[in-house]
Amino acid sequence: MKHGGDLITYEKYYDGDLIDFSSNINPLGPPKGLYEELIKGFPTLTSYPDIKYRHLKSSIAKYLKCPIENIVVGNGAVDIINNFISIFPRIMVLLPSFLEYEQRALAYDKEIIRLNYKEDFTLDLEAIEKNIRPRDLLILGNPNNPTGLRIHKDILIKLYGIIRKKNGYLLLDEAFYEFCPEDYDSIEIFKEYSFDNVSIIRAATKFFGLPGIRLGYGCISEKPIREYEKMELPWSVNALADIAGRYIFECKDYIEESRAYIEKERQFLLKELGAIDGIKAFNTHTNYILIKLLKWNEEYIFNFFLKRGLLIRKCSSFNGLDDSYIRVAIKDRKSNEKLIKAFRELERI
Amino acid sequence: MKHGGDLITYEKYYDGDLIDFSSNINPLGPPKGLYEELIKGFPTLTSYPDIKYRHLKSSIAKYLKCPIENIVVGNGAVDIINNFISIFPRIMVLLPSFLEYEQRALAYDKEIIRLNYKEDFTLDLEAIEKNIRPRDLLILGNPNNPTGLRIHKDILIKLYGIIRKKNGYLLLDEAFYEFCPEDYDSIEIFKEYSFDNVSIIRAATKFFGLPGIRLGYGCISEKPIREYEKMELPWSVNALADIAGRYIFECKDYIEESRAYIEKERQFLLKELGAIDGIKAFNTHTNYILIKLLKWNEEYIFNFFLKRGLLIRKCSSFNGLDDSYIRVAIKDRKSNEKLIKAFRELERI
Repeated sequence: MKHGGDLITYEKYYDGDLIDFSSNINPLGPPKGLYEELIKGFPTLTSYPDIKYRHLKSSIAKYLKCPIENIVVGNGAVDIINNFISIFPRIMVLLPSFLEYEQRALAYDKEIIRLNYKEDFTLDLEAIEKNIRPRDLLILGNPNNPTGLRIHKDILIKLYGIIRKKNGYLLLDEAFYEFCPEDYDSIEIFKEYSFDNVSIIRAATKFFGLPGIRLGYGCISEKPIREYEKMELPWSVNALADIAGRYIFECKDYIEESRAYIEKERQFLLKELGAIDGIKAFNTHTNYILIKLLKWNEEYIFNFFLKRGLLIRKCSSFNGLDDSYIRVAIKDRKSNEKLIKAFRELERI
Repeated sequence: MKHGGDLITYEKYYDGDLIDFSSNINPLGPPKGLYEELIKGFPTLTSYPDIKYRHLKSSIAKYLKCPIENIVVGNGAVDIINNFISIFPRIMVLLPSFLEYEQRALAYDKEIIRLNYKEDFTLDLEAIEKNIRPRDLLILGNPNNPTGLRIHKDILIKLYGIIRKKNGYLLLDEAFYEFCPEDYDSIEIFKEYSFDNVSIIRAATKFFGLPGIRLGYGCISEKPIREYEKMELPWSVNALADIAGRYIFECKDYIEESRAYIEKERQFLLKELGAIDGIKAFNTHTNYILIKLLKWNEEYIFNFFLKRGLLIRKCSSFNGLDDSYIRVAIKDRKSNEKLIKAFRELERI
């Protein structure tokens, strides 16, 4: 199980509709009015998408408050991350984190430097400073997956100092950015440095409830842009993803409503999970929660929940975590209550 | 101008709707009923596509009459071609051909062996035999773009003999397959050899009138599959492209109608173009025609047609062709007549 969301494999083990806690998608679904926009956009399927994605990039630049020259788009955030990995000689990752960082580096036979997060899953700046070399690409989830923690603003600025001093390169994977409290915007911070040696990647996948549409985007630095563009496939974004990207970022009410909804459910779930015996739920800044199992292994828990129609994410496939961790998404209240109910049953065993 | 279909760049030079002869798309548009299928499929946007694309691959396997184990899918044919290029040490191309073969090889810093087609744009088997080395990837358009010619069956079988003897690898880009006369099916031929050292790539882009949907697929050999899979990005096909792929291959009437339509228009255009002074239209097996300009250069002709609302493809960007070639798509009768009318005006200059 390399990724969550694999309903097709597991649906046969449960008589009914599985609730997917294994992938971390906005429970409110996509913005209202999107499907009508897509229908209006059907005629665009019969032409190639604009190879330069001019309208789409302009809409993203406005949303991110970032110069359009710095915008890239891709077939999901993973496409952009993949292009970055392909152009750097050495990749540094912190464990545990999203498996694809290492997978893509392995695909290109890149040297990989693996460091660990501290025990509380915060950054180990000393280890990074000690190990990073010029031209190393450091990839960090912000918030990180599966731990759910966002880098503190002061730490991020300290880290950036190290990156510049050592002439490394920082790639922030912010695919879950909008779910987080609005403490800072890394694009606003790094814009002042003209994104020197730093790029930020985001996506429509999680927050806008559209994992099927495959739309990632990023705000990237000028320096590797030419090398980066060489790696980009032509027409990497589907015409309907292009249409969606021109619509969703304008949905301000939806964005506010989703943030507030997740905030409320995050508090609800953290409180409820905190009261369950035999597990330790870690704090989170986003829409999923990492849980340490104190009495069981992931396999047992996975099957226990599957029998109750709930698909959770086993975490031993994340390097740096053993089989005593699971991850659950924050979903709608009714689903979250079902999750808590199942945990209470577990408590009584 | 690396690719056709760039309407956004040129629409400002013409007061009205440009007719796009620069990209080669089925003029009948996508199969009837597709948009209704896509609408029914909107809810799939809120989940990740099946990471293994089981239903989609099963539908393609049935259409291609090919074992499902051999099927790969990608974000357009170019995604699959790109993955192939990334895993072979040396790439052999014949000129002129689709520019992306070389572009992708350059992106990966691969050694490129460039040979030429013969003067009549047929294969130079001797040159291939002389130059190909073990593990070389030979990429051939079949039919080739921009020349429009399909490899004769006997020549293809001879070529395959050379490939196997030399332990090279043959990648056939058959993105325009369905437009061609049904003289042979390379998948049927190579199935008997278990696709040993050969793979065939096709796409929904051209024939099914869906360049915006980004759906390529291929029938690939067992040997590099594991290496190939390592390069594949997860969820490379958009959820609606997945839906489309499960629908369009069942549209038998549409397929027949499109073939017959293109056959008729091909005969019409070849005959009409053959009667125009100052150009030489080459024979074609597919839905586009390469034209040698005997009196003008591509730039002059491009602007001449643009002023009349017709966007054609300049060909000097194809290595192996100079600025005395253009390519035009075969479109609907009304558009084709406009094209001929413009050529007649040109004749009178």
